[in-house]
Amino acid sequence: MNSEKLKVAVLGGTGNIGEGLVLRLALQNLMDDGLKNEIIIGSREPESAEEAAKKDLEELENCGFDTTKIRISGKSNLEAAKAADLIILTIRFSHVPSLLEEIREALEDKVLITPVVPMVKAGPLFEYRPPAEGSAAQAIREMTPESTKVVAAFHNIAAGKLKDVVKCKAVHDSVICSDDEEAKKLVMELTRNMGCLKPLDGGALKNANTIESLTPLLVNLAKLNGLKNLGVNFS
Amino acid sequence: MNSEKLKVAVLGGTGNIGEGLVLRLALQNLMDDGLKNEIIIGSREPESAEEAAKKDLEELENCGFDTTKIRISGKSNLEAAKAADLIILTIRFSHVPSLLEEIREALEDKVLITPVVPMVKAGPLFEYRPPAEGSAAQAIREMTPESTKVVAAFHNIAAGKLKDVVKCKAVHDSVICSDDEEAKKLVMELTRNMGCLKPLDGGALKNANTIESLTPLLVNLAKLNGLKNLGVNFS
Repeated sequence: MNSEKLKVAVLGGTGNIGEGLVLRLALQNLMDDGLKNEIIIGSREPESAEEAAKKDLEELENCGFDTTKIRISGKSNLEAAKAADLIILTIRFSHVPSLLEEIREALEDKVLITPVVPMVKAGPLFEYRPPAEGSAAQAIREMTPESTKVVAAFHNIAAGKLKDVVKCKAVHDSVICSDDEEAKKLVMELTRNMGCLKPLDGGALKNANTIESLTPLLVNLAKLNGLKNLGVNFS
Repeated sequence: MNSEKLKVAVLGGTGNIGEGLVLRLALQNLMDDGLKNEIIIGSREPESAEEAAKKDLEELENCGFDTTKIRISGKSNLEAAKAADLIILTIRFSHVPSLLEEIREALEDKVLITPVVPMVKAGPLFEYRPPAEGSAAQAIREMTPESTKVVAAFHNIAAGKLKDVVKCKAVHDSVICSDDEEAKKLVMELTRNMGCLKPLDGGALKNANTIESLTPLLVNLAKLNGLKNLGVNFS
């Protein structure tokens, strides 16, 4: 991370959670303090990524934000990962192995954030289905070079609230787990300036299991209790 | 439940969570609405249970509450369970099999609440260690007569906040799981009048796994982030 700005690749940045993270990251550039960043959306189709980048910038402009200090671009997953200091994987667990294979050469020494939650629909509700490694985070640890700093974060965020950058002022907790203390601190700082999230240190990567399992719980609680867009707070 | 008052046995009611539940249940008798109850603390030693009952009544009196409408007594675990409509197991998971064996004859048709969390200390932190059945709740389901209505509830409550009936006005969520809809509704009503808890329907008993795993997470988050007496809220 030699540049002044942190270069963040959001792979799967054309999806719902990806879009929310891009908007919240972009707005950090308008704040007095906090990490400044440049965002590169990654997608299988570079055109989709470019289109999403344009749409996000327009969205921020329409909300009345000054976008002259904001940079969002779109590239292929590999090019986005190569250009980045920090990579966020906002994709389904089933797509993770092929994507990590595709971007493998770009993963050395990078910080890799996983909000990935392996879950399946079982009747009307969802069930957490972790892989044999114990969690998606631990499986991703196994699939990446040793020098990649894997950080588990952003699992329990409602996409609806994340994307609603103007109206939604709710602050939910985001528990962050990693075996790399420095990378964990960086992601906690990034999270603190996200506006809608309060970072909590969740300890080692192996603790990601419970955090991942909270996502189907939130979806199920919403469905069973007539609520929506649930997040979690520990207090 | 033919009597006017719900008879509640708190087995292990001499411990921290047990004491907090006894105090909060007792105070429901002073409220305009809500279920009225009579509490029987159970312990291996009837004398310890009687002593705990006396201490709890004194505690409420010292806090300025009118205890004339409150009944708390102490008995052996078996006698407490026999006398009760609803039994709460506030004991360690390792003690569950022998206790359930001891009170087996009193379990038919009863509502049995489990806030039990199987966890172990691993270094400075705690780890959730569910049994092969998937959760303590499911293991307890297997260990009890078919007619026993097992309800998982009260897992994620900080004993310190629960016991502090005068000062602590925090309201945390309590996710309640059961395969018996009627028993689940009864426990949700009981929870709603506890003053410090908001019940949420967590669906079937098999969903108790994630709820149980939240307890070591809360303890770990407190330790790692310099917080204490954490509870959880979904919003």
